[in-house]
Amino acid sequence: MIPRVLFRRFADLKSGRSSAVATRLQHSWNYEDNGSQGSRRHKQQAIMAGVIGAGAGVALWLKYHLTADAASSLLVTDKEVAEYGEYKDGMPEYTLEDVAQHDTADKRIWVAYRHGVYDITDFVQEHPGGEKILMGAGGSVEPFWALYAVHKNPHVLQIFEKYRIGNLAADDVGAMVKDMSDPYGNEPRRHITLKPASMKPFNAETPLAFLADSLITPSELFYVRNHLPVPEVDAKTYELEIVDETLDKEKTIKLSDIKKYPKYTITATIQCAGNRRSEMMKVKPVKGLSWGQAAIGNATWSGARLCDVLKDMGVDEETTDALHVQFEGLDTDPASMPYGSSIQIEKALDPRGDVILAYEMNGEPIPRDHGFPVRVIVPGVVGARNVKWLGKIVVSKHESDAHWQQNDYKGFAPNVDWDTVDFSKSPAIQDLPVISAICVPEEGETLKVVDGKVTLRGYAWSGGGRKVIRVDVSTDGGKNWQAVEDLTSDPARHPRAWGWSLWQAEVPVKEGISETQLCVKAVDSQYNTQPENFENIWNLRGVINNAYHRVNVKLAR
Amino acid sequence: MIPRVLFRRFADLKSGRSSAVATRLQHSWNYEDNGSQGSRRHKQQAIMAGVIGAGAGVALWLKYHLTADAASSLLVTDKEVAEYGEYKDGMPEYTLEDVAQHDTADKRIWVAYRHGVYDITDFVQEHPGGEKILMGAGGSVEPFWALYAVHKNPHVLQIFEKYRIGNLAADDVGAMVKDMSDPYGNEPRRHITLKPASMKPFNAETPLAFLADSLITPSELFYVRNHLPVPEVDAKTYELEIVDETLDKEKTIKLSDIKKYPKYTITATIQCAGNRRSEMMKVKPVKGLSWGQAAIGNATWSGARLCDVLKDMGVDEETTDALHVQFEGLDTDPASMPYGSSIQIEKALDPRGDVILAYEMNGEPIPRDHGFPVRVIVPGVVGARNVKWLGKIVVSKHESDAHWQQNDYKGFAPNVDWDTVDFSKSPAIQDLPVISAICVPEEGETLKVVDGKVTLRGYAWSGGGRKVIRVDVSTDGGKNWQAVEDLTSDPARHPRAWGWSLWQAEVPVKEGISETQLCVKAVDSQYNTQPENFENIWNLRGVINNAYHRVNVKLAR
Repeated sequence: MIPRVLFRRFADLKSGRSSAVATRLQHSWNYEDNGSQGSRRHKQQAIMAGVIGAGAGVALWLKYHLTADAASSLLVTDKEVAEYGEYKDGMPEYTLEDVAQHDTADKRIWVAYRHGVYDITDFVQEHPGGEKILMGAGGSVEPFWALYAVHKNPHVLQIFEKYRIGNLAADDVGAMVKDMSDPYGNEPRRHITLKPASMKPFNAETPLAFLADSLITPSELFYVRNHLPVPEVDAKTYELEIVDETLDKEKTIKLSDIKKYPKYTITATIQCAGNRRSEMMKVKPVKGLSWGQAAIGNATWSGARLCDVLKDMGVDEETTDALHVQFEGLDTDPASMPYGSSIQIEKALDPRGDVILAYEMNGEPIPRDHGFPVRVIVPGVVGARNVKWLGKIVVSKHESDAHWQQNDYKGFAPNVDWDTVDFSKSPAIQDLPVISAICVPEEGETLKVVDGKVTLRGYAWSGGGRKVIRVDVSTDGGKNWQAVEDLTSDPARHPRAWGWSLWQAEVPVKEGISETQLCVKAVDSQYNTQPENFENIWNLRGVINNAYHRVNVKLAR
Repeated sequence: MIPRVLFRRFADLKSGRSSAVATRLQHSWNYEDNGSQGSRRHKQQAIMAGVIGAGAGVALWLKYHLTADAASSLLVTDKEVAEYGEYKDGMPEYTLEDVAQHDTADKRIWVAYRHGVYDITDFVQEHPGGEKILMGAGGSVEPFWALYAVHKNPHVLQIFEKYRIGNLAADDVGAMVKDMSDPYGNEPRRHITLKPASMKPFNAETPLAFLADSLITPSELFYVRNHLPVPEVDAKTYELEIVDETLDKEKTIKLSDIKKYPKYTITATIQCAGNRRSEMMKVKPVKGLSWGQAAIGNATWSGARLCDVLKDMGVDEETTDALHVQFEGLDTDPASMPYGSSIQIEKALDPRGDVILAYEMNGEPIPRDHGFPVRVIVPGVVGARNVKWLGKIVVSKHESDAHWQQNDYKGFAPNVDWDTVDFSKSPAIQDLPVISAICVPEEGETLKVVDGKVTLRGYAWSGGGRKVIRVDVSTDGGKNWQAVEDLTSDPARHPRAWGWSLWQAEVPVKEGISETQLCVKAVDSQYNTQPENFENIWNLRGVINNAYHRVNVKLAR
């Protein structure tokens, strides 16, 4: 009998108070952009379904300074890690029940992985404070590693193996995973040109040069940012739960109900907070997927306005006590915890905010990778709040307590590191700042000089409904600048200009040089512009990478 | 008999078609922030009241590259310029009627100043294109110089004197100014500590260190930015004209009518677009008042919401064809043209935009220098749109055609100079970007190091309702940064956070050094931050001076 998933508060876990019912498998090696590791929800609540025995649970916080590494983000084959967790002669044997007894520092902290049993107490004590990363304790880490495949890599396992204390009893090996199928076994088909940053979960960006070709990014080329496996949702049986905690109301609506509301179509750019992270990483390593410049795209989105739907619930901007609207996805982790985040009530209820429960992307049903059948589109706001496969809306006095709202997608001063970071001190990223990029040419390309000029193309965008009013380019590393003449966007006006601008410029290059650095910066309708360099905006999480985009090219005449 | 003020279109003037009624005195030496010189309204329409004779009018565009100079912005005594325009023996004598015959380049362009007659045709031809500056032609420049006193300075007059061709007939000397009293003869009393940037019109900033002392800037210390003489308005007889051009409606309301609407109070920071211009000027000269860091202040403003007043006019956000709301002040130039500018209809009609017809500042009737009895407060938006002494509101499909909307208060790329600038290519500044400043210590001060630390204080603000979420300071010229712990603001939330934040920081300085550079930068709730340096945001008009504020200090231990 598999015990029912049990939710407990983080405080309970931290204090070591334990449940006698289930063995908690809390886990996170939070070293990639995938907030699903290290989620506060996990810390608070993750208790593994499918565990065995009746060992007491425990919370375990590990600080593990792994730097992001694009290669390690991609899937590792079983063969590459086959040497770890093998049976070792001469070591004592323990059952999972034995392991479950060791779930606090007092009793030593044990975990199981394949044939191995590990005492990781010293590891924990040698890495106190800093980012609190939870992982399975008193049980097996395998179910989580099946989900967060990026952790199952030689670098992690090599460290892990140092803490080996024994072998797991043969009968118990695999017991934790026997009922698990690959959670990524039912992913949608993807366009071959998408450039993956990680496979499980799937994260991929558009080939950069394609971006500048079309004001509307084709759906199949639109960057994909998933935190968990893509759920398969049947539009016919789809239900959206809506709760107003302040009014103590709740209801459930179907897709057909959503379609009864007036249909609005907006053009909106969605961007990952980590877009262009690979550039920031050159200053100093950060944790997160190594995105290039194409974790961004522009599409039309059609659906019902959130404000209309909430008005029907009786939510009134003038009288509500709520401060936030939380969203939950139908994508879940092994503890059945969904992806979640929230936005401010002001954005949700303002008709001018244009928040849409979208069921169409670019005029077609939203593709599975982008949230089929319903995704909330919060235009001007970081992608992380544009929750896909929307399953639940909660009108609340509180922000979402999900990891992605509380402990991820926040910026910090450059001096803050994983030893000193306090996520509670920084507000969750919502509206994104002004950004731009050169899409053509790309770094290292050879560029043809025609009549003393070169041609550059790219995008520029600002969140918060700010429209790009000017794009400046430089062909000498930023010494001289000129505004581009050709700047295209949809006609929406500030402060509801949710879509990006594409630009093209023919600009002179200095005679006689064979290589140079191209730069771009944009100005938005609030006259904000971009910071020059990454040094002074560096942050440990590698978000808000909006310094000038610099592209080094060779020149052919 | 003084002819009635006559308005004519710019096109007429430019084509040389002339009025037989009045001698037009068009003028501008647009070298300071005072948009009243070079106003498009002037170019279009300025025809001098109080002129004599029946000479034909003419438009004259001069490009005059004068760099801003704080000293020259201040009032020049008659004594300092007494040597210019004096009677010169041996020169031919001309009457004003003679001068009036020379009002086009074909006929040579003559102007009169005191006892002198000048042929400035060559000057015009040597400075073609670029900023089109109008000045009196075929007549006297004196009435305008009485208003725009900054031009009456030795530097201008010295150049002017090179074009001297004769003496003005004794009977005509002073004829143009005989009915003029000093338009600045009725200015309000000002607090002695205000630091003037120009006297006529009066422009002055708060002593910098005072700013950081109080979240609410006392009214009498609030920076003053006037473009014209301060009008004396009687609250009892005050009338506000409201026109909707699209509905063909108009009405006039009194102060008592405005007070009948629900009274709203907001805390809002007002900032001049040229605040901190003196720092940008160090890169390369710009035109405009040499403001320090204190052309900004934070106050409470109380009054009726503009959206409520316009709703009463039948202006409906959903149905209106209007795109802009124009404002005119009761402050006027010699041609009776008022100060004017406009904002977008979206801002005006959105209750969340908090645009207020304010009759109180900090709980008291608005002082004369700040717009008594009614000033429109457009929170988050550049001071230039917060029109004082509000006389007229026009709901329109068009922006204000006033100089300050069309040909001033706009930003450009760094390569744009007065030869290449096209003001029509850049949108009028509305919401201002994120900015910050160190108020204490000031440049060159000696700072006491206590326990290895120094104390800094200052402000940070962002327009558009964005709240400052973080302020970073550096005590080593920007190499290392840390977030300040002490950041105070009123409780308003994004996107209606109109007021600034004050901050204080105790930060370590490197041991053993005797001087260093302090820096500050802010991050707002859209995660926008400031540009590092002025080089790449330099613009000919010296607006949006929001690069890091850098203060060089000596250290005492």
